[in-house]
Amino acid sequence: MTLLVVGSIGLDTVRTPFGDVAEALGGSATYFSTAASFFTDTALVGVVGEDFPAEHRLFLKSREIDLAGLMTRPGRTFRWSGSYGYQLNEAQTLETHLNVFEEFRPVLPETYRKAEAVFLANIDPDLQMEVLDQVENPWLVASDTMNFWIAGKPDALKRMLARVRVLLVNDGEARQLSGEYNLVRAARAIQGMGPAVVIIKRGEYGALLFNGKSVFAAPAYPLETIYDPTGAGDTFAGGFMGYLSNARDLSEPSLRRAIIYGSAMASFTVEAFSLDRLKALSYDEIEDRFTAFQSLTAFEPLLV
Amino acid sequence: MTLLVVGSIGLDTVRTPFGDVAEALGGSATYFSTAASFFTDTALVGVVGEDFPAEHRLFLKSREIDLAGLMTRPGRTFRWSGSYGYQLNEAQTLETHLNVFEEFRPVLPETYRKAEAVFLANIDPDLQMEVLDQVENPWLVASDTMNFWIAGKPDALKRMLARVRVLLVNDGEARQLSGEYNLVRAARAIQGMGPAVVIIKRGEYGALLFNGKSVFAAPAYPLETIYDPTGAGDTFAGGFMGYLSNARDLSEPSLRRAIIYGSAMASFTVEAFSLDRLKALSYDEIEDRFTAFQSLTAFEPLLV
Repeated sequence: MTLLVVGSIGLDTVRTPFGDVAEALGGSATYFSTAASFFTDTALVGVVGEDFPAEHRLFLKSREIDLAGLMTRPGRTFRWSGSYGYQLNEAQTLETHLNVFEEFRPVLPETYRKAEAVFLANIDPDLQMEVLDQVENPWLVASDTMNFWIAGKPDALKRMLARVRVLLVNDGEARQLSGEYNLVRAARAIQGMGPAVVIIKRGEYGALLFNGKSVFAAPAYPLETIYDPTGAGDTFAGGFMGYLSNARDLSEPSLRRAIIYGSAMASFTVEAFSLDRLKALSYDEIEDRFTAFQSLTAFEPLLV
Repeated sequence: MTLLVVGSIGLDTVRTPFGDVAEALGGSATYFSTAASFFTDTALVGVVGEDFPAEHRLFLKSREIDLAGLMTRPGRTFRWSGSYGYQLNEAQTLETHLNVFEEFRPVLPETYRKAEAVFLANIDPDLQMEVLDQVENPWLVASDTMNFWIAGKPDALKRMLARVRVLLVNDGEARQLSGEYNLVRAARAIQGMGPAVVIIKRGEYGALLFNGKSVFAAPAYPLETIYDPTGAGDTFAGGFMGYLSNARDLSEPSLRRAIIYGSAMASFTVEAFSLDRLKALSYDEIEDRFTAFQSLTAFEPLLV
């Protein structure tokens, strides 16, 4: 049941109205794999520099994440810094230093080639396809992308999309990729590019799941305080893919449960900076929040 | 089971990316009462000028809305014109002519004084209270308001809020009224001002219901084309209050059903300009959309 993820591993410096943190563990593959590790065996492909703190590697190991694909290269680890206003919806990027991530070429250890599920986090679509080329026969392939690749590498992106079953993007990315403002039309257009399942992440407004002709709407969990939204989307993807990889079931009920587990995991991440909340998370808390999502959304017709 | 509404009746000129309409029937009390009339006996308090077209009065009568409280005054009817961009979230007001609405003082016909439920649409909070003073013993009082009164008449607004059971506002209004950006905190703060039930309307993102300590999140119905969002919020309120007035039940399950009926009614309104979609609406279509909301939101845990 191994779930493979390729993406960034970095050190984040983040300021929100509720505090700040410097050089904390971050990166799409980090958030994703940590969330997924609560559900299934997870393996990571990525690169760090020689300055990557040992404590972070120990933490990932403590989650039983397979780090055979985590390369260490001469130089510094990827760094990002950003700040959020009260709206907490979109980060203002202050600095990005790709460092060793700039020359990253994913090479999969032999043991990864039989991965059953693959998540291609937001990296160059050519690299996403290089990863796919190295996996023998995955049962499930999902990917993310971003505005930079939609605008800059549209042809490679379309070739990649033709090879994935599930695409997870935010609303702005869905609009840019499809050329449609309306999200229902945007999702339909993206389904025409390959992915039978399109998930549109809307941050504080939750997520929409388009699976064939069906639509499912899940809210975000209403929290009184959101300390740091960094990583929420990748954590969502990790919970979603982790659940599916373990269940090995792509039926509509299973996909909906996966969306709720993803939403639950994301709701924990934003309760603290970096991965601090996930580090302290228990299985009981995850199940309790799944139940809380049922209370949050359930209604019944009046029986007559 | 009479539900009384006080608010505006006007002639709207609206342009959206999907078309335009000139001097069409509009106004908060119009959308509200039309939506409510599908659920319960509805009575309207408002004012129009001598130029108010007879066809509009006939339409409201065809919905069996009690028009004893609809005054005709010398002068012109309230007019509003606005336009929407592709985002369709907020209208840009081009012109507002209050006309006879400027001197509006609500005087209730004797037959209205025993109204069982009251909805105070968005008008001057002093006028909202004048209406309440004329109703003997309503079982349920709900209100709307807007940024203009929050900023301009905060003291009157707070006196009014102390007298209502349910407040329906949009997210921006909730933030302005409470001084809290986070919507959970905003709703808690507003509950402290009087209304035990606070409903935050989020347009395309649905609605949040805060009832005591409980929270319910309902999505908006995902539509491929939204022709004109004008009146969606008042239609939502009409479906919500119409259902509750008929059910005479403020339990949590009943409030949740009311939110879904309100959301269903709003989803029809935006499918056409003015009240055109509501004019063609059937009871079966309403029930079908209620069922569609169940399909849109339902998920089940895996039974083990």
